[in-house]
Amino acid sequence: MQRMSESDIDTVLATISFDAQGLVPAIAQQHDTGEVLMLAWMNREAVVETLATGRVCFFSRSRNALWRKGETSGQVQHLRELRVDCDGDTLLLLVDQHGVACHTGRRSCFFRAVRDGALVEVAAPQVSPEVLYGAESATLRQAERMGGDAAGGGGGTTGKCLR
Amino acid sequence: MQRMSESDIDTVLATISFDAQGLVPAIAQQHDTGEVLMLAWMNREAVVETLATGRVCFFSRSRNALWRKGETSGQVQHLRELRVDCDGDTLLLLVDQHGVACHTGRRSCFFRAVRDGALVEVAAPQVSPEVLYGAESATLRQAERMGGDAAGGGGGTTGKCLR
Repeated sequence: MQRMSESDIDTVLATISFDAQGLVPAIAQQHDTGEVLMLAWMNREAVVETLATGRVCFFSRSRNALWRKGETSGQVQHLRELRVDCDGDTLLLLVDQHGVACHTGRRSCFFRAVRDGALVEVAAPQVSPEVLYGAESATLRQAERMGGDAAGGGGGTTGKCLR
Repeated sequence: MQRMSESDIDTVLATISFDAQGLVPAIAQQHDTGEVLMLAWMNREAVVETLATGRVCFFSRSRNALWRKGETSGQVQHLRELRVDCDGDTLLLLVDQHGVACHTGRRSCFFRAVRDGALVEVAAPQVSPEVLYGAESATLRQAERMGGDAAGGGGGTTGKCLR
């Protein structure tokens, strides 16, 4: 997408209702296939950076810091279009995901489905996590051990999505 | 989808990380077109009811009550498949949306997009809100005045999605 000016970004920001923690949930969807890749959170700064650069930047609640998707893993998300919902408290990011969105090596974080009364895996990894992590910096491996987050619920340390 | 037994539902519940308020964000996506319709929240009871009945039930944060999608408006969501993300703190509901998901009469709540530096509407209503609300009960109209919620950020009173 076209990179935006500061004043245009301010106009968009004014339509977003950030929560008490200054965050808004953002759904990342592959722009052409429609696949929902992940959900993460953004603060004002993350929205500004994403619109200014065209590369998706989230806010990691567990690390309390900006989370430039793919910065260390290379699995970046290019923004194609940002959408705002009717009451301004959820964002939909239409993205072009480079590689895989999930730390497990799968395209999407939503690879577990309830079928026939049980939770089953419905997508296989496209790349082994070992390969993925092996190509990354020691900094990332340390960060992963400390726990990043994708949707970042209770600050757990397992199942965290690719930085 | 197949309705589930209590013990199977308990197994699924064990994989979900509810937040400190006992909630988890749930993305509703039209199962065949891939259109992301809305984001709302579920508590344990909403997940149980949804899996047991096959009809989507959210939890309204502003009303602090179960929100049976379409109960009064008729715009119900039939669950086709429930997915859980890698760290269990976001749900993806593949649904069959009857009618429209948004209180504005649009299929999706995500009808505003940033294009050429400005936020523009990219989808027209399929049904006028007046027709939609006119067909509804006095109970709904009263509830709407009091404010329901979809994603339900700060408890605002405008732009609330169809119950």
